[in-house]
Amino acid sequence: MSEYLPGLEGVPATKSNISHIDGERGVLAYRGYPIESLAEHSTFEETSLLLLDGRLPTARELAEFDEQLRGNRRVKYNIREMMKSLPPTGHPMEMLQTAVASLGMFYPGPEGLTGRDIREDLDYVHSMTVKILARMATLVAMWEHIRNGYDPVPPRTDLTYAENFLYMLSGKEPEAFYADIMDTCLVLHAEHTINASTFAALVAGSTLAAPNGVIAAAIGTLSGPLHGGANQRVVEMLEDIGSPDNARPWVEKQLAAKAKIWGMGHREYKVKDPRAVILEKLVEKLAAYKGGQVSPLFETALAVEEICRERLAHKGVYPNVDFYSGVLYAEMGIPADQFTSIFAISRCAGWLAHWREQLADNRIFRPTQVYTGEGIRDYVPLRDRG
Amino acid sequence: MSEYLPGLEGVPATKSNISHIDGERGVLAYRGYPIESLAEHSTFEETSLLLLDGRLPTARELAEFDEQLRGNRRVKYNIREMMKSLPPTGHPMEMLQTAVASLGMFYPGPEGLTGRDIREDLDYVHSMTVKILARMATLVAMWEHIRNGYDPVPPRTDLTYAENFLYMLSGKEPEAFYADIMDTCLVLHAEHTINASTFAALVAGSTLAAPNGVIAAAIGTLSGPLHGGANQRVVEMLEDIGSPDNARPWVEKQLAAKAKIWGMGHREYKVKDPRAVILEKLVEKLAAYKGGQVSPLFETALAVEEICRERLAHKGVYPNVDFYSGVLYAEMGIPADQFTSIFAISRCAGWLAHWREQLADNRIFRPTQVYTGEGIRDYVPLRDRG
Repeated sequence: MSEYLPGLEGVPATKSNISHIDGERGVLAYRGYPIESLAEHSTFEETSLLLLDGRLPTARELAEFDEQLRGNRRVKYNIREMMKSLPPTGHPMEMLQTAVASLGMFYPGPEGLTGRDIREDLDYVHSMTVKILARMATLVAMWEHIRNGYDPVPPRTDLTYAENFLYMLSGKEPEAFYADIMDTCLVLHAEHTINASTFAALVAGSTLAAPNGVIAAAIGTLSGPLHGGANQRVVEMLEDIGSPDNARPWVEKQLAAKAKIWGMGHREYKVKDPRAVILEKLVEKLAAYKGGQVSPLFETALAVEEICRERLAHKGVYPNVDFYSGVLYAEMGIPADQFTSIFAISRCAGWLAHWREQLADNRIFRPTQVYTGEGIRDYVPLRDRG
Repeated sequence: MSEYLPGLEGVPATKSNISHIDGERGVLAYRGYPIESLAEHSTFEETSLLLLDGRLPTARELAEFDEQLRGNRRVKYNIREMMKSLPPTGHPMEMLQTAVASLGMFYPGPEGLTGRDIREDLDYVHSMTVKILARMATLVAMWEHIRNGYDPVPPRTDLTYAENFLYMLSGKEPEAFYADIMDTCLVLHAEHTINASTFAALVAGSTLAAPNGVIAAAIGTLSGPLHGGANQRVVEMLEDIGSPDNARPWVEKQLAAKAKIWGMGHREYKVKDPRAVILEKLVEKLAAYKGGQVSPLFETALAVEEICRERLAHKGVYPNVDFYSGVLYAEMGIPADQFTSIFAISRCAGWLAHWREQLADNRIFRPTQVYTGEGIRDYVPLRDRG
């Protein structure tokens, strides 16, 4: 038996073609394309297809995929009814896990959950890929209305993925500036090698479970505060700090207490996370766009960033992707408890790509354990116990 | 980087006190107690508490836990409404993943999904443990009625876990003989070291996700045909074979084609799975109890078992736990597509025990990968692509 490494740190769990991180140099590439060029030139639709298929699509392939995504934005009426029966106080990530888990019941494929080996039904695999990816944004946006007592805003097919998502969220066609920011955020969060939620998708997928069950497993995993839940925590932290003036004493106090500052540092990167570099520029652009009319939260974020840079950068600790994305989404008027849902919409592309890669060369995950418990012992009848 | 082992076979993923398998000797023990003695002397309630707490409870502890389970059988009205909005053709495991994922919205704990470290809120951890374990049986039984267009049968608090489950399923108080079989089946399936679904629970739990999200991840993982879905397949296979007379030619054909015979063999055991030994005796007892008035499916199962023993036992391949449990449940009148749900009810005890063990010494799962993809390459604008 090999050595036990907690969290399987450094243990290869799969072979993968999908993405690659060079933490020493601050490189993240999807299918070989650096994240910087994808953020600048690509779209979420194209990046998703790149992740799924392994290469940049032709114009025709992209148009076809985009058409499929647009045609799959609507959900069945009963999904809405189901969501209406959920408590409005429930967390959006719990709603999302619930709703995605149910998608297989609404779209069961030709032979239902059982009766076929999904590896032999590539039409089903592709069709569910599109169905889930397209509907993630719809479910998240629907919930924003339903939990507030309103009817959801039906999707439009004449808008891009990012535009339509913002449209469904607010009921208004978004300014191009904001739609571009959202599109870039979706590109940046779409994939990040074998993180916990992607790993959960591999484990679930390795039993040949249906993709809705697989993605729901990943959503549940992403919901934890040590993973996707962090971007919501960043904004809650900034609200706690309250104003730019409080930033320095607050950061100093946390550092002195060796307490956590949400949104700082990343296990994989020794230098600044390349996604954070891009997001930082978007934050600056957004501030310029608003001509200084930014919220106290935004100003607090800039102050925290500056102080953390001064105090932590020499240790290789920089603001990470959660820090900036939380700030951006908040400034776009999105409620903090929806940030992780947006992360999920985006990462769904990566989950689906890894799920398909797992199916192509599958072996069920069944690791072993270091048993540290009792040896064999005799059962003691209830009456003879202490 | 250590060696890549597909499916992490032989790679220790955790330290655990909970259960132990000796595949050479055919031993499975929960907390040191061999499965044979638990099957004979214990109950699902006691076994669950043993798995959770690490020791056999005192009479008082057991009574208190049992009381909590009984008091948590009912679900909120809106959970029923939610289930009514799901398509009746949907698979019970998809319903179960959906419904369990939603439980956190209905029972959010004192501070909701975020805002606290669940490791510091042991009351919440215990309360959710009871809430989920108690309600698993309710949800499964409710679905059986709802999908058939009937109102669900409310749980009773004067029955044991197994009795109440069978009561809710059928609307009739079960004969003690069948309740005992169900109780034994629940004990036998409750825990089995780091299988795929338990592993998914560890991965999801390691992000400090809420327990409903963790258990829903495990349910999605269990639903796959290579894992929990196998017991349903056994019965579908037996229905395919059709009669005892067809058993021999069918088995010979499968062996000649090197095709899969569902319910045969287990990766962990070189000798017969100790759970299968116990279940085999239950099958015999059930046949005797019915005085030979068994279904053709049951007789077909006995014929397949005999032929497989003759042809496969010398290779160390024996009927496994899925083979016998499927036959038993079918003979008890339970629909085949609910078998995996019963597995989930039972295994939920093990998932919760592993989740709590993970929280007590947590490190987020983030394994690495063998990257086999493209090196860094330049983005090609859409107009310049082939």
